[in-house]
Amino acid sequence: MEIALLGGTGDIGEGLALRWAYDTDHEIVIGSREADRAAGKAEEYEVELDSRGVDVDIAGESNADAAAGADVIVLAVPAYHLADTIEAVVDDLADDAILVTPAVGMKRDEAGFHYNRPGVGSVTELAAEAAPEGVPVVGAFHNLPAGRLANLDADLGIDTAIVGDDGDAVETVTTLAEDIDGLRAVDAGPLANAAEIEAITPLLINVAKNNEGMHDLGVRFQ
Amino acid sequence: MEIALLGGTGDIGEGLALRWAYDTDHEIVIGSREADRAAGKAEEYEVELDSRGVDVDIAGESNADAAAGADVIVLAVPAYHLADTIEAVVDDLADDAILVTPAVGMKRDEAGFHYNRPGVGSVTELAAEAAPEGVPVVGAFHNLPAGRLANLDADLGIDTAIVGDDGDAVETVTTLAEDIDGLRAVDAGPLANAAEIEAITPLLINVAKNNEGMHDLGVRFQ
Repeated sequence: MEIALLGGTGDIGEGLALRWAYDTDHEIVIGSREADRAAGKAEEYEVELDSRGVDVDIAGESNADAAAGADVIVLAVPAYHLADTIEAVVDDLADDAILVTPAVGMKRDEAGFHYNRPGVGSVTELAAEAAPEGVPVVGAFHNLPAGRLANLDADLGIDTAIVGDDGDAVETVTTLAEDIDGLRAVDAGPLANAAEIEAITPLLINVAKNNEGMHDLGVRFQ
Repeated sequence: MEIALLGGTGDIGEGLALRWAYDTDHEIVIGSREADRAAGKAEEYEVELDSRGVDVDIAGESNADAAAGADVIVLAVPAYHLADTIEAVVDDLADDAILVTPAVGMKRDEAGFHYNRPGVGSVTELAAEAAPEGVPVVGAFHNLPAGRLANLDADLGIDTAIVGDDGDAVETVTTLAEDIDGLRAVDAGPLANAAEIEAITPLLINVAKNNEGMHDLGVRFQ
């Protein structure tokens, strides 16, 4: 399977790229608004993987080129770039392409971080609104600890809650998620259930900030 | 320490009463709007505990009588009864009494359960607004699986995130939470951070509903 990670130079994108390249045989393509930056990061990831005995080619391209032909496109960009990133790639999508959104909107005040819920209900639903008709959108990977994800020596032992309205697309993303060692995918139902997942991310930051010895947290439903 | 469980005849109240009575030497008082009902439930709990070799007296009283003199008062009532429950007990509170709120507001549609966030920010902050000046309110026990909590054979292995603006009160409630075997308390900061904790409860229900073999879920930050 070909997976494009748009915004794949950022923290969650980096972690997903490294984990999939390390744990699976999926083809990984890094996308960025600047193709050069994507290519540079892709090379960094190759070097990191090579140091662990994994010889793999990772392409780095513009977001549009990375998305073109990919089976699954992960929109690892900030929430406020979600709509324009989708717009930039939409003309070149393969038939049956699946868009995946891990983005969360947050705001911060003196108490801590808070979920910044968009009017449409969630950032995941914002992506679904921006996507063309017939292109399934799946919400996943919202609550992953970026640092641990990108550190291949770190155990995960955490969950990702997945939402989507297209059963086949949810199944594909669920399989991709569980291809990552130590990550368990749980089905949280339709896209309309995304807000409560997204809200966990600011809570994880607040908990890390207020408890000694806890940092870079994920979540487990048990 | 004397702990009053108002609404202690309901599911979370029952679980907390049984766990504290089983795992600790704290004095447990069950409160209900009807004293008879509270007394009946308290007797049930005594029988359950006695069957496990724990001989303990649990009182059952009206909410106001149960709250009077208690060190910690857990408002284990539905969100829409929070304000009137506080109003009913406030005149009889001991100096230094601490109010604890585990209530969450939810609504349901065809997609699943959703967090019903009150205008004031969270149900926890709703309790804080209803409490008299100088009486500390702590948010805790929002995401506990009621069935497992009340089943003393069941292992917990889960967390409760605690919020509060009064450091001493938070510390007291944290200790009480960790007195329960298998429950870990994590500090999520001030009361203003409560919404993201409360929102987990509907998500846990959605995950349980959509995944075979998962039910009565709690959460772990790790």
